[in-house]
Amino acid sequence: MNFSYPSRLFEEAVNEFSSLPGIGKKTALRLVLHLLRQDKALIEKFGATVSRLASEIRYCRICMNMCNDDICPICADTRRDHSTICVVETVKDVMIIENTQQYRGVYHVLGGIISPMDGLGPADLHIASLEERVKKGNIKEVILALSATMEGDTTNYYIYRKLSPGKSVFSTLARGVSIGDELEYTDEITLGRSIVNRIPFEMK
Amino acid sequence: MNFSYPSRLFEEAVNEFSSLPGIGKKTALRLVLHLLRQDKALIEKFGATVSRLASEIRYCRICMNMCNDDICPICADTRRDHSTICVVETVKDVMIIENTQQYRGVYHVLGGIISPMDGLGPADLHIASLEERVKKGNIKEVILALSATMEGDTTNYYIYRKLSPGKSVFSTLARGVSIGDELEYTDEITLGRSIVNRIPFEMK
Repeated sequence: MNFSYPSRLFEEAVNEFSSLPGIGKKTALRLVLHLLRQDKALIEKFGATVSRLASEIRYCRICMNMCNDDICPICADTRRDHSTICVVETVKDVMIIENTQQYRGVYHVLGGIISPMDGLGPADLHIASLEERVKKGNIKEVILALSATMEGDTTNYYIYRKLSPGKSVFSTLARGVSIGDELEYTDEITLGRSIVNRIPFEMK
Repeated sequence: MNFSYPSRLFEEAVNEFSSLPGIGKKTALRLVLHLLRQDKALIEKFGATVSRLASEIRYCRICMNMCNDDICPICADTRRDHSTICVVETVKDVMIIENTQQYRGVYHVLGGIISPMDGLGPADLHIASLEERVKKGNIKEVILALSATMEGDTTNYYIYRKLSPGKSVFSTLARGVSIGDELEYTDEITLGRSIVNRIPFEMK
């Protein structure tokens, strides 16, 4: 849909918003019109916050997690278990796992997974720095928490082959029936694996 | 859903985006992560464009349409018919009507419609300036292009009562069956009105 924009700047703003994923021209138009109804100070704050993302967001030099400093708060936290590394694809995965409050180790963000279809090979990921961390020793366990897809499995296998001659134990996330799910609606492969990898029953 | 944000600035950016209509925390998170994957120059441009909205967007002093100058391009265009004013609710309506390329007159943006439920009375709208324009004379026709709702009808009636002692003709948009619609799916009220206000048949 083409609009006759009343102002070039307005059109530019609509284009900026519609460049975001899942936001079309019509939604972008609505967002910009909404912004324009706000106080000037609020609009400026929005713009300034976005601009600051470019200059202030940095990545932890140990685990590649997003942060404001040289080292992220998780790597800097001495109360966490630095001998367990959870390998994830993205910064978002760190947030999701942190959100469960069940993990007290540290992370390593790969920045993606091996996916020849997307032109992503091992060299495009932060695998070398993971290797270095593991080689330095003192890493008891490496948890491979990648997607349960073919690409995830390929990446798991690649990392395992690359790092396994060391002393670390390798593990992956448990696969099985989701909590709250009925068996009827669980896919066959997951169900099959959850039988093979059944766990001792516990009264809680 | 609560996230453990890796950075305060990142959280602020997510909050800014989720303050927009129709954008929740999860979508905002996705948008900010998408932005962070872009070049720094692109992120800064996004931020700067939003900031400029606050300082550079102005409203035409004649019709209240959005513009960069004192007077909008439509009011400044001498080839347009300045004796016909189309009264609309918002800047977006101007864009939508301009988009049809069927109207060559000028506009007057009310900034809303009379809606006691939302606490919007006649004094909150740009009705006084419309009155002034019409009183100055030379206005042959006032087209009331407001929503086909009770609030729109109330506002139409209010404006008509306020301005009708002058020489201008008043009109509203035609109501009827949408082009491409089947009668079966047209609501009764619209269908009823479209029979009462039937128009001469024309071969095209």
